[in-house]
Amino acid sequence: MFLNRDHKWVYLFQEGNATMKALLGGKGANVSEMTAAGLPVPPGFTITTEACNAYLAYDLQFPEGMWTQSKESLKDIEKKTKKKFGDPKNPLLVSVRSGASISMPGMMDTVLNLGLNDETVEGLGKKMKDRRFALDAYRRFISMFGHIVMGVDTEKFDRVLARYKSQTVGGGDTDLTPELLEKIIVAYKRIIFADQHGQEFPQDPYEQLRMAISAVFDSWNGRRAIDYRRVNHIPSDLGTAVNVQAMVFGNLGWDSGTGVAFTRNPSTGEKIVFGEYLLNAQGEDVVAGIRTPKPIRNLADELPEVYVQLIDSFRKLETHYLDMQDIEFTVEENRLWLLQTRTGKRSGAAAVRIAVEMVQEGLITQNEAVTRVNAQQLDQLLHPMVDPKADAEVITTGLPASPGASSGLVALDPDEAVELAEAGHPVILVRHETSPDDFHGMAVAEAILTARGGMTSHAAVVARGMGTPCVVGAEEINIDLREGFFRSGMHSVRRGDWVTIDGSTGRVLVGQVETIQPKLGEYYDTLMTWVDDIRTLKVRANADTGHDASIARDFGAEGIGLCRTEHMFFGEERLALMREMILANDLASRQAALDKLLPIQKKDFYELFEAMDGLPLTIRLLDPPLHEFLPNFDELQAEIANLKLKVQKADSFPQIDQLLKDIVEKEELLHRVEQLRESNPMLGHRGCRLGMVYPEVTVMQTKAIMEAAAEAVIAGIWVYPEIMIPLVSVDLELASQRKLVEETAIQVRGSYGLKFKFTVGTMIELPRAALTADKIAEHADFFSFGTNDLTQTTFGLSRDDSGRFLSHYITNKVMQNDPFQVLDQDGVGQLVKIGVERGRQTKSDLKIGICGEHGGEPKSIAFCHGLGLDYVSCSPYRVPIARLSAAQAVLAERDLKAKAAGKPIPAPEPVAKKPKKSAKA
Amino acid sequence: MFLNRDHKWVYLFQEGNATMKALLGGKGANVSEMTAAGLPVPPGFTITTEACNAYLAYDLQFPEGMWTQSKESLKDIEKKTKKKFGDPKNPLLVSVRSGASISMPGMMDTVLNLGLNDETVEGLGKKMKDRRFALDAYRRFISMFGHIVMGVDTEKFDRVLARYKSQTVGGGDTDLTPELLEKIIVAYKRIIFADQHGQEFPQDPYEQLRMAISAVFDSWNGRRAIDYRRVNHIPSDLGTAVNVQAMVFGNLGWDSGTGVAFTRNPSTGEKIVFGEYLLNAQGEDVVAGIRTPKPIRNLADELPEVYVQLIDSFRKLETHYLDMQDIEFTVEENRLWLLQTRTGKRSGAAAVRIAVEMVQEGLITQNEAVTRVNAQQLDQLLHPMVDPKADAEVITTGLPASPGASSGLVALDPDEAVELAEAGHPVILVRHETSPDDFHGMAVAEAILTARGGMTSHAAVVARGMGTPCVVGAEEINIDLREGFFRSGMHSVRRGDWVTIDGSTGRVLVGQVETIQPKLGEYYDTLMTWVDDIRTLKVRANADTGHDASIARDFGAEGIGLCRTEHMFFGEERLALMREMILANDLASRQAALDKLLPIQKKDFYELFEAMDGLPLTIRLLDPPLHEFLPNFDELQAEIANLKLKVQKADSFPQIDQLLKDIVEKEELLHRVEQLRESNPMLGHRGCRLGMVYPEVTVMQTKAIMEAAAEAVIAGIWVYPEIMIPLVSVDLELASQRKLVEETAIQVRGSYGLKFKFTVGTMIELPRAALTADKIAEHADFFSFGTNDLTQTTFGLSRDDSGRFLSHYITNKVMQNDPFQVLDQDGVGQLVKIGVERGRQTKSDLKIGICGEHGGEPKSIAFCHGLGLDYVSCSPYRVPIARLSAAQAVLAERDLKAKAAGKPIPAPEPVAKKPKKSAKA
Repeated sequence: MFLNRDHKWVYLFQEGNATMKALLGGKGANVSEMTAAGLPVPPGFTITTEACNAYLAYDLQFPEGMWTQSKESLKDIEKKTKKKFGDPKNPLLVSVRSGASISMPGMMDTVLNLGLNDETVEGLGKKMKDRRFALDAYRRFISMFGHIVMGVDTEKFDRVLARYKSQTVGGGDTDLTPELLEKIIVAYKRIIFADQHGQEFPQDPYEQLRMAISAVFDSWNGRRAIDYRRVNHIPSDLGTAVNVQAMVFGNLGWDSGTGVAFTRNPSTGEKIVFGEYLLNAQGEDVVAGIRTPKPIRNLADELPEVYVQLIDSFRKLETHYLDMQDIEFTVEENRLWLLQTRTGKRSGAAAVRIAVEMVQEGLITQNEAVTRVNAQQLDQLLHPMVDPKADAEVITTGLPASPGASSGLVALDPDEAVELAEAGHPVILVRHETSPDDFHGMAVAEAILTARGGMTSHAAVVARGMGTPCVVGAEEINIDLREGFFRSGMHSVRRGDWVTIDGSTGRVLVGQVETIQPKLGEYYDTLMTWVDDIRTLKVRANADTGHDASIARDFGAEGIGLCRTEHMFFGEERLALMREMILANDLASRQAALDKLLPIQKKDFYELFEAMDGLPLTIRLLDPPLHEFLPNFDELQAEIANLKLKVQKADSFPQIDQLLKDIVEKEELLHRVEQLRESNPMLGHRGCRLGMVYPEVTVMQTKAIMEAAAEAVIAGIWVYPEIMIPLVSVDLELASQRKLVEETAIQVRGSYGLKFKFTVGTMIELPRAALTADKIAEHADFFSFGTNDLTQTTFGLSRDDSGRFLSHYITNKVMQNDPFQVLDQDGVGQLVKIGVERGRQTKSDLKIGICGEHGGEPKSIAFCHGLGLDYVSCSPYRVPIARLSAAQAVLAERDLKAKAAGKPIPAPEPVAKKPKKSAKA
Repeated sequence: MFLNRDHKWVYLFQEGNATMKALLGGKGANVSEMTAAGLPVPPGFTITTEACNAYLAYDLQFPEGMWTQSKESLKDIEKKTKKKFGDPKNPLLVSVRSGASISMPGMMDTVLNLGLNDETVEGLGKKMKDRRFALDAYRRFISMFGHIVMGVDTEKFDRVLARYKSQTVGGGDTDLTPELLEKIIVAYKRIIFADQHGQEFPQDPYEQLRMAISAVFDSWNGRRAIDYRRVNHIPSDLGTAVNVQAMVFGNLGWDSGTGVAFTRNPSTGEKIVFGEYLLNAQGEDVVAGIRTPKPIRNLADELPEVYVQLIDSFRKLETHYLDMQDIEFTVEENRLWLLQTRTGKRSGAAAVRIAVEMVQEGLITQNEAVTRVNAQQLDQLLHPMVDPKADAEVITTGLPASPGASSGLVALDPDEAVELAEAGHPVILVRHETSPDDFHGMAVAEAILTARGGMTSHAAVVARGMGTPCVVGAEEINIDLREGFFRSGMHSVRRGDWVTIDGSTGRVLVGQVETIQPKLGEYYDTLMTWVDDIRTLKVRANADTGHDASIARDFGAEGIGLCRTEHMFFGEERLALMREMILANDLASRQAALDKLLPIQKKDFYELFEAMDGLPLTIRLLDPPLHEFLPNFDELQAEIANLKLKVQKADSFPQIDQLLKDIVEKEELLHRVEQLRESNPMLGHRGCRLGMVYPEVTVMQTKAIMEAAAEAVIAGIWVYPEIMIPLVSVDLELASQRKLVEETAIQVRGSYGLKFKFTVGTMIELPRAALTADKIAEHADFFSFGTNDLTQTTFGLSRDDSGRFLSHYITNKVMQNDPFQVLDQDGVGQLVKIGVERGRQTKSDLKIGICGEHGGEPKSIAFCHGLGLDYVSCSPYRVPIARLSAAQAVLAERDLKAKAAGKPIPAPEPVAKKPKKSAKA
């Protein structure tokens, strides 16, 4: 099929675009798109994946016409650059890169400076006015070509280089004189000749190009690439494209340079020029942090002509890509070239502001704006900041690379950070500078501090992506890894000491400093208005106190989805009463203890009703096993053993008497604790099973709720209590508890002469409850899925005990996610679906929510939206995220429907969540 | 609709039959059926449920024609009995009973002796030649009628009776002279007159009858009946019938009598006359055990004419009902009357023999025979008997009322029995005689012993029904409840002492006597041949040793469905090695311990392969959490505390040194135990999660299995190992473990140069596994449902901890059954169904079994059959029961299909499993 000689194998960059990924590969399509957008991209062309497939299919021969088309395309580059391939005076140099539609390991590395040979190197030297540099580039090219294209072991080149370096005074790369470089070049060519059994390093640039193209094609069938495709189920007939692009040099003098820039400020979102550059430098120099780059606005003074080109490019970029872009550029003799553009990573605040302002600028729609902010970014926005009133001592100040403030113990390497984090400590990772090797330490850190690097250094980019507070370039600090401390002026901070990082101001503070919640601001408010307009799922909060309920309400909660009444019993006085109740030997004394608990619970409920005036309040009756309220068995046993030791040592009879009395008392308690002890408390006597055996507890709690509600109504508060029965597995449990609750509630309400509404529902948190939801729904006004417990029982996996093997599972990809964090849609999700369907089969208008941790997790929220739930309930600080996710779920669903209906969808580039390893490292 | 005056409201017994239950009620239909079968039933008639409904619908008036038809029917009775209703010389007396189609509480009690008045009482006295008895009957009738029909409070009658009794010397009922009885009768009539505001006790027998019939109808709408119907969803328009039947008297002299009889021996099944009677006595006298009844064969000498009638009735009964019958009869002046017949309860041995012999007699088919024996009866057959060689000392001998032998601790009242049983002890309940109030104690007892009563006493009937060994009428024993012991001759046995009851011989033995398994005999063999011909479900056994496997095979097991390898580690030497493995700090030392365990496991497996030569053997890899192999944390802690106390008391340095060393050692162990401790071990690091983290354990076990199998093959044994991975919740767990097992197994097999087949499958014991069975099946050759764990996780209910509330649930009918005993079809069953369907969706020929406790429970087996499982696996002693249940499931399914196809089904009366409270009490 590819034997037609007129078939088009080669596309100039200006001939392609982003949609041609399958044919041109990812890189080819991207650079074509940039070209199409009118951006100043160094010219070049792409040889298609079809050419690769033809090459591999027909005996490793270029398909007919391909080489001719390539050479013609080269002419186009020559014309555009005004250089000539192989011209000894003004040589055109090119890069050759592989580029499949899916990026994968094992593909050929990039070959730079192709086109250099014994003649052109001199031309380049003259043009650069630096023969040494040109020779060094040639030396590097030969070894790169020799290794990558011809397959010579790098070590052979390295050994020669080391020998020559040892002959110099300094011993470094830069100490090599032109004379020595000439000798190295000769030696390198000999190595190739010997290794390749008499084949010379090709002097003909066209031969170099031909060989490099073949090498790219060949790498598609390399061992690593094949393995990778097999493991990841990637078809082997995709093929790879080849990109040939003119080299541009930022080090051709002081009218040349290189830099990175963002079209808006990635930290605040403000629409201002943002970035850094170095004159007379190559790309790596900016990222590496060896020379300190200058802020981009200085360019207006140093190279005003280039500055104008850059500002013009910014405009084109945003108009074309409709999002903030992160670019790499090179200036060659006053001319701007963009090497790469991608959607820029940004802080949460920036994401919100950019999204809102782009709507105001008419670039994107409100719906698009809502998809532009992800949960992690919003979460970051809710991060605390250092309390301005706090009396904080500043150790040093660096660049504010990622906002938010966090305190933690200092770790000086990533492994140490992981260790401390696993021991349950918050960690601050402090490094000279970071690299991808530090990633595991960065991931567990509460904040990151580096001594070197700018706002676009590895640490800064990664931290912003993760929403982790970060300060970079704190140059005053001096790290002594061996002794385990860092110093800054008068301060010396040891491993494990507390410090606080303020990523919003760049300050590093002594100890654990008070932080406060930031004001969310107008951009946030605007965005959330759009969010609330879009979403259909309601968002409630899990809160057990009036205080928490108020916070939740401020974050936009539309009710309380889960109030855990047991937390109310953990105060000292309450705990004593609770123990009195549990240790009671008969109903009368149990009732007496309950009577004392009632007013306390009532007060708590009143405060909740007050905080949620006008909104529903779901209260779950007592859930945990009773022994949770008793002292720990082991500790009690140890205490008794201790008292017995004391008896032996005691020397007065009254003392002994007292000790013996104490022992008897504690032993009685121990006995009761032992009685109530369970081998698997999670599956034991808890939830409604308590209320079934001790109906008086259900009655007391119902009374407390209804009396509080009644008194709130009298005080002018609008109440809507929803009483929730936990851990139902059999419909008759609910029927029985409901009867008790209803009777009590109606009686209490009547005694106040009131008629406000209340409902009775249940948690669906056991597989059996979901499977028999049709029967259970007969007795329920609402369902609330307790996905924490449902996950535990569906997997047969205790949340408390799974730590020791769950991480092993996730590392080994046996599980994709921790199912306690992200709802397991394949298993647990089936039960939720069954529960919803069967519940609504019995009562079509059954109100259904979810109140596990998953209620605040975006993927899980989307799932709940898809199932038609009425609300999700999550912790107060997750409420804005839940609102956002609920809106995004609506939009994703609409896109899916539009797609199914065959309508074109405006697909905004997704905002990347985690930096790729390759990012800037 | 009922206003047609010719409508038939009344049916003579000879006009009805068993199919007319809706119209005639249960009692009416039964007695009609007996009459239709030509049995000598006291004549009578039934007023229909339609009449009741008409009465209730039309202003509490008898529907037109009903009363006339009743009076006409009465004439028929008069003719048959040669007595006349209201005749002062020869009065006909009748009983009036309610009888709805569903028996329910709150309906009117039976009124006996209706027809007595001031005149007829004298005629009865003369006929009985006992005026006192007639007056006593009249006195009882007035109070009965006054209370039941007229609604007078019984206490009023009781007070009068008490006053008169107090005037006698003895003070008992029997001390009342005719003169006193006359006074009582006058007083009773006055009470009624006063209570009913001037309405007299009716002297007219027709008025008595009219009022009694109305009272029956009225009771249908009594408060208790209405409540009961509402709770049990019984329609309120069923109505009740009224049965009016001639009274017959067994106490009219020595040609009269009463008795109970079985058409065959209910203990052995032998076809011989069996029963007891008393002459000149009423029905209650036999059951109450006050006079000792005579065996029925004596009747041949005492009343030969009646004996012939009885034998004739037996033949008619069995020909008509096609099953062994249990009858109550009365002889009135040499004439036999059958008062009741029902299917006779029988021992297991009797059930099997009767079923087989009835086939041989041509009464029933083989299929029917198979449905005639229930699981409990078969279980009883498998019960142990006292070892004839045991040196057993006999305390006393009573009647062998229910076969089998059991040892246990003596309890003298039912509550005590329950207490001991709950504490985990086997219990022998010893009582004077039992009543329905003793039921809870009888239910938990291993065996029952009574001092009084015959083979048909309450204790005997109930015990046979439950398959509990029982000895009754051990008259030598003398129970002292207050002092808590019983005495028999020289023996004195206290509460809590061990005794052994041999229900097959009637012996009561000192202490705990050895028992042996009985020979199952030819009737059993014949029945089981039919069973095996019918069933399609295979039956395997759960066995962990060669010994258990052999027993299972003898019982007919067709393979091992579950071999739990962890039980193999609990020997002393093995446990030490297991601990060494667990406490190992690195792979090398763990491997060393495993290497020592391998030959031990291999030997165990070899023995199993040997026992199951030719049959499949499913071996489950290590399942429990590792800490189960370590010492108990609390005990270890106590030991350490103890050692510390000893240090304080120690007086020599070497002693102290040794103690301190011990402490350090134990503390290290404690530390590891604590590390491995889990808050919910059932949901913790167990099952395949062990093999995932410690693959070397999986490898060791696989090696042991395959080496044993290979060596067995070499020894000429046919092996078929099925290696089973436990506790899979995610398909990739199984994929990963399967790979490990397969690689190891193939390598071992190859090293022996053999090619025998093995398979790898998994337990489905977590809800998630069932829900994702389609994916899991991709990696499984077979599934085995672990319904114990599946029940725990589906209900969120720990088997170990549920005791304290599950009994509460069952007592209160929140649950029907203990879900660990009877598979919960509504919940857990759904998951089994889903698992089967999805598993077979992926692999249509997937072999599927069940290996939880439910594999030996009849209802659960029927469910498994219905789902199309390949086999059930249960404990060796349950194998015959499982075979029987599997066959019964086939027959039940056929019946259901035939019913659906509209074919008539021969519906044998089901053999009742538990005695109703009303049985004979």
